[in-house]
Amino acid sequence: MGNSDMAASAQKFVYAFGGGSAEGRADMKALLGGKGANLAEMANLGLPVPPGFTISTEVCTAYYANEKNYPEGLDAQMSEALRQVETVAGARFGEASNPLLVSVRSGARASMPGMMDTVLNLGLNDQTVEGLAQRSGDRRFAFDSYRRFISMYSDVVLGVDHADFEDILGGFKDERSYALDTDITAEEWQGLIARYKALVENETGDAFPQDPHEQLWGAISAVFKSWNGARAITYRKLNSIPEDWGTAVNVQAMVFGNMGDTSATGVAFTRNPSTGIKELYGEFLVNAQGEDVVAGIRTPQNITERARIEAASDAPSLEALMPETFAELSRTFDLLERHYRDMQDMEFTIQEGKLWMLQTRIGKRTAKAALRIAVDMAAEGLIGREEAVLRIDPASLDQLLHPTLDPEAKREVIATGLPASPGAASGEIVFDADEAERLKALNRRVILVRIETSPEDIHGMHAAEGILTTRGGMTSHAAVVARGMGKPCVSGAGSLRIDYQAGTLSVMGVLLKKGETITIDGSSGQVMRGEVATIKPELSGDFALLMTWADSFRRMGVRANAETPLDARTAREFGAEGIGLCRTEHMFFDSERIVAVREMIIADKLDARRAALAKLLPMQRNDFIALFEIMAGLPVTIRLLDPPLHEFLPQADHEIEEVAEQMNANPDTLRARIAELKEFNPMLGHRGVRLLISYPEIAEMQARAIFEAATEVARRTGQAPIPEVMVPLVASRAEFDVVKERVLAIASQVAEETGLVIDYSVGTMIELPRAALRAAEIAESADFFSFGTNDLTQTTFGISRDDAARFIGEYTSKGVFKMDPFISLDIEGVGELVRIGTERGRQTKPGLKTGICGEHGGDPASIAFCETVNLDYVSCSPFRVPIARLAAAQASLSKI
Amino acid sequence: MGNSDMAASAQKFVYAFGGGSAEGRADMKALLGGKGANLAEMANLGLPVPPGFTISTEVCTAYYANEKNYPEGLDAQMSEALRQVETVAGARFGEASNPLLVSVRSGARASMPGMMDTVLNLGLNDQTVEGLAQRSGDRRFAFDSYRRFISMYSDVVLGVDHADFEDILGGFKDERSYALDTDITAEEWQGLIARYKALVENETGDAFPQDPHEQLWGAISAVFKSWNGARAITYRKLNSIPEDWGTAVNVQAMVFGNMGDTSATGVAFTRNPSTGIKELYGEFLVNAQGEDVVAGIRTPQNITERARIEAASDAPSLEALMPETFAELSRTFDLLERHYRDMQDMEFTIQEGKLWMLQTRIGKRTAKAALRIAVDMAAEGLIGREEAVLRIDPASLDQLLHPTLDPEAKREVIATGLPASPGAASGEIVFDADEAERLKALNRRVILVRIETSPEDIHGMHAAEGILTTRGGMTSHAAVVARGMGKPCVSGAGSLRIDYQAGTLSVMGVLLKKGETITIDGSSGQVMRGEVATIKPELSGDFALLMTWADSFRRMGVRANAETPLDARTAREFGAEGIGLCRTEHMFFDSERIVAVREMIIADKLDARRAALAKLLPMQRNDFIALFEIMAGLPVTIRLLDPPLHEFLPQADHEIEEVAEQMNANPDTLRARIAELKEFNPMLGHRGVRLLISYPEIAEMQARAIFEAATEVARRTGQAPIPEVMVPLVASRAEFDVVKERVLAIASQVAEETGLVIDYSVGTMIELPRAALRAAEIAESADFFSFGTNDLTQTTFGISRDDAARFIGEYTSKGVFKMDPFISLDIEGVGELVRIGTERGRQTKPGLKTGICGEHGGDPASIAFCETVNLDYVSCSPFRVPIARLAAAQASLSKI
Repeated sequence: MGNSDMAASAQKFVYAFGGGSAEGRADMKALLGGKGANLAEMANLGLPVPPGFTISTEVCTAYYANEKNYPEGLDAQMSEALRQVETVAGARFGEASNPLLVSVRSGARASMPGMMDTVLNLGLNDQTVEGLAQRSGDRRFAFDSYRRFISMYSDVVLGVDHADFEDILGGFKDERSYALDTDITAEEWQGLIARYKALVENETGDAFPQDPHEQLWGAISAVFKSWNGARAITYRKLNSIPEDWGTAVNVQAMVFGNMGDTSATGVAFTRNPSTGIKELYGEFLVNAQGEDVVAGIRTPQNITERARIEAASDAPSLEALMPETFAELSRTFDLLERHYRDMQDMEFTIQEGKLWMLQTRIGKRTAKAALRIAVDMAAEGLIGREEAVLRIDPASLDQLLHPTLDPEAKREVIATGLPASPGAASGEIVFDADEAERLKALNRRVILVRIETSPEDIHGMHAAEGILTTRGGMTSHAAVVARGMGKPCVSGAGSLRIDYQAGTLSVMGVLLKKGETITIDGSSGQVMRGEVATIKPELSGDFALLMTWADSFRRMGVRANAETPLDARTAREFGAEGIGLCRTEHMFFDSERIVAVREMIIADKLDARRAALAKLLPMQRNDFIALFEIMAGLPVTIRLLDPPLHEFLPQADHEIEEVAEQMNANPDTLRARIAELKEFNPMLGHRGVRLLISYPEIAEMQARAIFEAATEVARRTGQAPIPEVMVPLVASRAEFDVVKERVLAIASQVAEETGLVIDYSVGTMIELPRAALRAAEIAESADFFSFGTNDLTQTTFGISRDDAARFIGEYTSKGVFKMDPFISLDIEGVGELVRIGTERGRQTKPGLKTGICGEHGGDPASIAFCETVNLDYVSCSPFRVPIARLAAAQASLSKI
Repeated sequence: MGNSDMAASAQKFVYAFGGGSAEGRADMKALLGGKGANLAEMANLGLPVPPGFTISTEVCTAYYANEKNYPEGLDAQMSEALRQVETVAGARFGEASNPLLVSVRSGARASMPGMMDTVLNLGLNDQTVEGLAQRSGDRRFAFDSYRRFISMYSDVVLGVDHADFEDILGGFKDERSYALDTDITAEEWQGLIARYKALVENETGDAFPQDPHEQLWGAISAVFKSWNGARAITYRKLNSIPEDWGTAVNVQAMVFGNMGDTSATGVAFTRNPSTGIKELYGEFLVNAQGEDVVAGIRTPQNITERARIEAASDAPSLEALMPETFAELSRTFDLLERHYRDMQDMEFTIQEGKLWMLQTRIGKRTAKAALRIAVDMAAEGLIGREEAVLRIDPASLDQLLHPTLDPEAKREVIATGLPASPGAASGEIVFDADEAERLKALNRRVILVRIETSPEDIHGMHAAEGILTTRGGMTSHAAVVARGMGKPCVSGAGSLRIDYQAGTLSVMGVLLKKGETITIDGSSGQVMRGEVATIKPELSGDFALLMTWADSFRRMGVRANAETPLDARTAREFGAEGIGLCRTEHMFFDSERIVAVREMIIADKLDARRAALAKLLPMQRNDFIALFEIMAGLPVTIRLLDPPLHEFLPQADHEIEEVAEQMNANPDTLRARIAELKEFNPMLGHRGVRLLISYPEIAEMQARAIFEAATEVARRTGQAPIPEVMVPLVASRAEFDVVKERVLAIASQVAEETGLVIDYSVGTMIELPRAALRAAEIAESADFFSFGTNDLTQTTFGISRDDAARFIGEYTSKGVFKMDPFISLDIEGVGELVRIGTERGRQTKPGLKTGICGEHGGDPASIAFCETVNLDYVSCSPFRVPIARLAAAQASLSKI
């Protein structure tokens, strides 16, 4: 202990701010959290920030490392900081006549909206409340503040359910027939406070703490504890935030937005977070505390006149109500955006006409807004094009790449709410987050419908296709979180009535039950009955422009995994530069062909097999012709038959009979062949190159189809594709060579027959650990490598993707795996094999072309890794091509 | 072509020997083949070797590399060498009056008995046969030689079936009622020769070649071609001889053992190849050519008087017949053994009283003989103990480690033949090599019963448990090959009559049919009806002594894979130094326990699972007590539950009903649980550490059983075992840590409860590629690594061992894989992961204990690899422990 104590006492834990300066800076987020760092930065900029101090994230880490004990020295540093706050604020903490009140808030490195607990008005007790009453001249305000503090503190710090206080309040109002809290007088609040305190003593066994220092330590501990609360853990998991980052705690002098009609509180963005348009965008409430806006209990007013008019609101704008304060606010916002060079999301309070800035941070935005802001800011010269490209989260593009409502489709609109998060979604109505999660696990699409959402609903919002609330504004919890998740959201659809008990949603005579389908359009705020048809998104404007910038910075190629003409066309429209993986077996499942495929499989003689293959040849050739025409002049990587043959055969008894009849075969013969082909571990069985070695005539048929199709397309269009024939599941060079030899022979034959020589190559998938290890040898013979990271992940981990569901959820939730390795490439393990494979391959063949064609090819983190190992291209599903283009550009830029 | 021609003409292809000197040496086997190198060596030693020359293996390689064309320059070098032979032999090749005759034989680097073709008496034609008749003064001998040459040459070089010549000869003898070939006169042979030549012309379309040079080239080409004949390929595959070694060709002046009663031919060993006893051991035939002895057509005579008396033979020994030649032979044999420092296997011919040495080589021997010879030679000072240890093929010990006939058991002996290869075997009678192979594939044990065997039977001999022939001596094909394979063989059991057609074996009124079981004892020569009981081998004498030498040179420890007391005891007797792998799940299949196991599996609540586990605890504890008592003071590595739970559940519908009743459970519940647990790829599924993380109570029960048992044994015996708790299927440190924590907690609990602290460790299997790659991290937490190379091979190759049968045979037979990686460790791929795992593990934990516990732990080649990467121990099945001890010693010695 001795040594660590000495070290601890020398360490700085507390950083003061306010009164025109601060000990922290914006770039100290890791230490001070986002909120603390930005409060310090604003103080340094000379903006009006209530004085306060930040307890660093290191204290949080030390707290958990040391069995929830605080480091030595913290106490003294805090007392000193509190004294400074008292000096600036001109009040003293715990002094009855002139009490300093503080807020205690969490502030992690990354913004975690609504996830951490906050306590306001701390420092109030039976004595100081009188001082507050006296100094504010508003007794009712003082006791209202005290009762808010008691219920908030008791809920967050002491674990007394907030609803119990609401019950007391509700009962009281019912007794008096009061409609609003504002009907309650100071004296009545006093009486209620006595009942609140009795409740606390009854529930906890102790009186409500009267010592402000005890209150302060209690609140600070509650913040640190909430870092490991279930809500925070869920949010961290969903957002890949490491547990060891910890949170800071901000203690700050209170300012009051609820001191009458010259007071207000609000939140604002420097640009529209939904569309990206450059306009002051925000909401405020007169005579309210900050939490009232976010909570969505009262419907807030617009800040600017323009917004008010657009929204056709009757409530006056801040611009109209307090023109001077509005002007100061506008100036402050401009200053902050120029200073931070990004769109800001701010909280402010106006106390009796004086503006106080409580927070600024980089504003969350929709993908559409992000594109617009990045492109606009580059045009404004605020940032460069490189930075514009780096600003867009590639994964967020997903929002723009999926269908929107077909304007031609019939819509039965039953209500209209706020367009809180863009995009359209259809699904079953569910009223409960847990149920949303449960149904999602069954692959059902749901819309989560709530009066309002709270952090407890996060997992259900994550599971839902979209979110619909009947209360709350554009900055309500539901709206903010949905935008963050890129999910459609309609909020504040006030005409809808929800009955949780009955499981119904009703509006003007329409009654919808749990399980019925609705559609929401987060771009218009419309709520529709049933499922509404959608159309493909158009990729133009900001999107197209930013993508051209991205392409100019990108080193790696981007191809698509596609086997149908539809997929291939989509891929081309999205900018794919070829096909990185065409799985030929998908072409075999077509109902016309499966008969011939099955004939081939049950054939016990080479001749019969060849006869069946001869039937397949023209069909395969036509498949390739269609693809090659779309990809004329581009490389098309075609994987030869990969799955074990039993995948093509029926399994159930009645199917066997049916198929046997169809094929004109004896059902017993068929059954025997099925039994013969059954495998214990098909993933590790007789498939890929192993199959092609056993049945070389299959590879020959496919090679012939490929080369004949390429020749045909070259002849027709004058532009030959570049077929890249790919041998799957190779573990050794010798295996590859056996098949390569056959493919080369067929290529020569076709060239001779047609008199046309096509440029082509023959390569292999690297999808087994051994292939990666023996890459030097394999590359002597293979023209290219394509890393099949799906199977490589399966074999490197020894995990079958089909069977992983049973435990991989548990693994990620328990933190055993940081993430699901089938979603984001396991860089440490599988990634090392990709690196080894690439390096060794290029040892023997320096120009070896390498790519990735697993699902990871569309995952930004995995793409960044591919850049570090210098792959030539990534290949992903058509709809992820733009994501991959952007991610690849960012990877190039980050590497420089 | 130009360059390679120039290189070729400068290269030496032909190496002469004879007349007291040679161009080659014994250490040039790679170039000259074994036979050629040893002929050269003998010539250099001044021994009587007929002059000749060797065409090097490089010619064979060039021949195959260059589309079966010979390198430039070979012709000239051969002509020159032939001139030298003519000079020494005093005769001229093709000269009618004084013709030089030669033999042409193959000679590969490794001895391949009976696999390659030989042509004798080459150089004879219608003219030279007259010269031979004149110079030998024996017209009959000359024409007999000519007809032998025609049939042999036509068979081997021209592809005319040998049986067609035999038909002509047989028909002729029948016509004249001749019993023996010796009844035929010179003139009659002349007539037969005309018919032989007519047959050749008829079959091939060409006259039999009369030009000796054409004959010579034809024979040489036949030798080279036979290198890639089916027989040779099979032999190479069985003996891991690389294809690219090639064969040399030896052309040597003929000497004749068939020039009357002062001529003879024989084969001999310097020590008894069956027992190892130091005694001249061999056979000869008077008035015969070399091939006659090996072919086993005439029953040969003993060389020494002692052997003749022991065999109770009437035929005189060479010692008695030709005492002077015998003395020279004895001296020569002694000289050769001292010179080569190993037991020699020699061929000689006596031509009219003059001894000629035709071959010497290291003699094949049984494992028993090898041990005796090695120990004796070390005692004689001929070799050191290190060399004695290195001389024994570890795999050959297998012969000694398996049961022999119980002397107490009842035997119904139906015949006695020669004790040609020791060991006892029982099995079904089969008469055909193909059928032997077919039945073996169905896991049936067979005895291959043949009149005599030929190289075409090799695959059947390989498949059989033992071989029985009715013709042929101790050096017949069957005897030599069986000894090489370490399979029991009784040869020359002449009282047995075989009817291939009827599929019967009969002797004195006893008739056995195909499929009936017999037992053969290759140590006594007995053939018994039915199956005879066997007993465990005793490991004493030479064996025990050599093993103590081996142990003194060995660095790596040797442990056994064992879970039953029987296995553990066997392992200790065979010298295991602990248990390297105790698979606890095997203990769960016991009929008494499986009910509790199944209760645990279908339990859907933790409580119910714990209740079922509580029933298993005392049983598991007793299992461990039994093992620990046997292994007192030694390390015992216990693997926690590994297989997926569905392995413990019934599959067929009637079984499910039955089991449900047994367990007092609802069959539908059971069925539902079975369906729930079904996996697509169980090998990659919910097993190993994944199961232990899902059901930590299983690990806790097992840990408790282990520690309680260890404490109990420590208390009872005063000698605690050293439990090493092993977590299977770990891919990351985090997984390991979850289970380790539980095990540590239980260890502390048990120590507290019992007041006894046991020394133990917790480690992991490295059986997934990722575990090997992340070994540095895992070793921070794990006390030891045990490489599970079975699963590591499965995942590295992506091959399921259970499903590999479908293609792995094809792979090895086509040469795609050099060997089955489940039998011998794939050093290039899987081995690299073992190396990486060990190196990285020791980076973070320098003293990390590492071992191997896959099947490879008993494979000598794999053990040699383990030494190179510095593993601490190998663990194998109990019966392979001595093999592993010896292989480990050899690996240590080879490393120095």
